[in-house]
Amino acid sequence: MHRIALDAMGGDGAPRVIIEGALSAVREWPNQFKVLLVGVPESLRSELPSDIPGGIEVVPATEVVEPHESPVRAIRRKPDSSIVVGLGLLQQGAADAFISAGSTGAVMAASRLFLGMVPGVERPTVGTMFPTAGSPVLVVDAGANIETRPYQLLQFAHLGSVYMRDMLALETPRVGLLNVGKEASKGDTRTVATHRLLQEDEELNFVGNIEGDTILEGSCDVLVCDGFVGNVLLKFYESVAGFISGVLESHLDPETYGAGLKEVYRTVDYAEYGGAPLLGVNGVSIICHGGSSARAIKNAIQTAVTCVESGMVADLASELGPTSRTARVWRKIRRR
Amino acid sequence: MHRIALDAMGGDGAPRVIIEGALSAVREWPNQFKVLLVGVPESLRSELPSDIPGGIEVVPATEVVEPHESPVRAIRRKPDSSIVVGLGLLQQGAADAFISAGSTGAVMAASRLFLGMVPGVERPTVGTMFPTAGSPVLVVDAGANIETRPYQLLQFAHLGSVYMRDMLALETPRVGLLNVGKEASKGDTRTVATHRLLQEDEELNFVGNIEGDTILEGSCDVLVCDGFVGNVLLKFYESVAGFISGVLESHLDPETYGAGLKEVYRTVDYAEYGGAPLLGVNGVSIICHGGSSARAIKNAIQTAVTCVESGMVADLASELGPTSRTARVWRKIRRR
Repeated sequence: MHRIALDAMGGDGAPRVIIEGALSAVREWPNQFKVLLVGVPESLRSELPSDIPGGIEVVPATEVVEPHESPVRAIRRKPDSSIVVGLGLLQQGAADAFISAGSTGAVMAASRLFLGMVPGVERPTVGTMFPTAGSPVLVVDAGANIETRPYQLLQFAHLGSVYMRDMLALETPRVGLLNVGKEASKGDTRTVATHRLLQEDEELNFVGNIEGDTILEGSCDVLVCDGFVGNVLLKFYESVAGFISGVLESHLDPETYGAGLKEVYRTVDYAEYGGAPLLGVNGVSIICHGGSSARAIKNAIQTAVTCVESGMVADLASELGPTSRTARVWRKIRRR
Repeated sequence: MHRIALDAMGGDGAPRVIIEGALSAVREWPNQFKVLLVGVPESLRSELPSDIPGGIEVVPATEVVEPHESPVRAIRRKPDSSIVVGLGLLQQGAADAFISAGSTGAVMAASRLFLGMVPGVERPTVGTMFPTAGSPVLVVDAGANIETRPYQLLQFAHLGSVYMRDMLALETPRVGLLNVGKEASKGDTRTVATHRLLQEDEELNFVGNIEGDTILEGSCDVLVCDGFVGNVLLKFYESVAGFISGVLESHLDPETYGAGLKEVYRTVDYAEYGGAPLLGVNGVSIICHGGSSARAIKNAIQTAVTCVESGMVADLASELGPTSRTARVWRKIRRR
C-alpha cells in the first residue's frame, strides 16, 4: 500500500485543516493508501479523533519551519522539522510521496537535498493547474524559478508533458509557450530562443505561442513560461473569481444566482487540483498553497497517489535520463 | 475648440464602427470639440449621414496601413495613410490629439517620428486602464516595451503618475511595482533594481511591490511592469470575463442573472476606458484596441479631450523636462 507522508505542521490552518484533509481522504478512499502525518505529536493528538483510523499513522517531528525563515538555513538548523523528517521518510524508502502546505522554499530546498534530481534535469519546476472551460492547463513554471534560461524552459516543457501524460492520461500533451504574439519572432530574447528550442524538439507536441487571452480556451495542456510571469498570472487568476463574484453580489440577490456563483468558484478553485507537483526531483513532492482548505489537502493526497501509481518519476527518468533521445538532443543543443 | 484627429481606417470595424463612435461623441458632447475623421473619402462618405454634423470634418487620406505591415516601412511607404496624415495634423498644429485603432506599431513609430519625445524621456510607454472594484489601475507598460531597463521603468512610473493625476484628478497617485513577493529583495534582477530606483525617488508616491492577487484590490493607481508581463496580464484579464460568464451561462438561466452578468461585463470592459495613451511622446496620441466598439471609440475621444484640456503633455514636460527635479535625480542615477 502506498504511503503518503503529509506535513501536518505546514500551512495557515495547520495542523487542524491538514488533519481534516487526511481524515476525509482515508474516509473517501479507504484501504488504498496510508497517510503518515508528520508533526509535533502533542499538537496532532489534540486534533485527531480518539480512535485514529487505520489509514493514518503519526510520525513524530518536534520542530516546525516557519514561513519566513531562510529555507536553506531552516532545513539545516531544524533536522527534526516536519519537512526534513517527512522527506527523510522518502529518502529511507519509508514513504512514497511527500506533501506540504508549509514554506515552499524549504520544501523545494529539502526535496532537492533529500531526493536529488532526475539525472540530466538542471532545475526542478513547480507546475500549477489552471482551471479552464475544458481540460486544465499545467503552467510551468509557476514561480519557483525566476530568470530561467531557454534550455531550462525546454526541460520544464518535458517535465510538464510527462506529468500531464501520467496524471490526465493524455497521449501527447500539447505544449504552448506563453508570449505576447503568435509569431516566432515575438517576445523578449529568452522567449524567442525558447520558441526555437521547443520548435526543434521532435519529442514534444509544440503548438506554438499562446497569448494571454487564449490560455483559458484550453489551447494547450502545458504552458511554458518563466516563473516571474507564471507567478503573477497564477495569483491574478486566484483573485479574479473573488473580484467578479463581488461585482455580481453587489448587483444581484445571492439567492438568485447562488448556484451559478458556486459553480464559478468550483471551476476556478485551485483546491480542485490540490497541490502543485515539484517536477524534476527524484521523488514525488507536492507543494500546497499555504491557505489550503481540507478539501485541497484531500485532493493533494489523491494527486500524490496518482503520481506514485502512474510511476511518474520513473517515466521522467526514462524520458529525460542520460540515455534517452531527449537527453541526446539536449546535449547537442548545449554544445551549440 | 479642441480638434481631435481620428483615424477612420484603423481597427477591425473600420470605417463604420469608428464613424459611429465619432457620431455618438459629437451627439453626446455637442459644441465641445471637433472630430477630424481621417480616411479615404469615398469609404467615409458611404458610412456618414448625408447631413454631416457640425462637429465632424473629413480629412482625406488615400492610403491605409495594414495590421501586418512592418510599422516603420509602412509609415515611410505610405505618406498619405490615415496614420501619417492624422499625426501630421498634430505636427502642423492643425489638431490637438490623435486617436487610432489601427496598427499599434505604426501608431507608435509615427507618433515618435512626428511628435518627438518629451525631452529627457527615453521610450514612450502604453498605459492601459485595468478596471478594479474601485478606481482603475493604470498598467505601464502594457506591451509596447519588451525587455525594459530599470531606468526606463522608473520613467514609466513618472509618466503614469502625471497621466493619472491629470485624468482622474488624483493628487499623488500611488505607484506599485508588479512583483512575485512583498519584500524588496524579491523578483528578477530587473525588478529588484527597479524597486530600488522607485524607493529612492522622492517625487513618486511609491507604495511597494504589488503581487498578482492584489492588483484588483486597487492597492495602487499606477502599476509598473515590463511590457511582456503587462501584455500577458492585460490579454488574460480581457478573456476572464468571457470565461466566467461562460461558466455561469452553462449553469443558470440567462434570464435570472442577466443583470448581474451585464454589470460584470461593464465593470471589466476595457471599452469603458476607451483607449490607451502613448505616454512620453510630445503630444496626445491614443491607441485603441483593434476590436474597439463604437462605445470604446467614443470614450477614447473623451479621453483625448481630457488629455488636451488638462494640459497633460505640458505637465509631463514640466515634471520630467531637463530642468525638473526629477530629471536632476535621473541624471544622478544614470551617472552611477
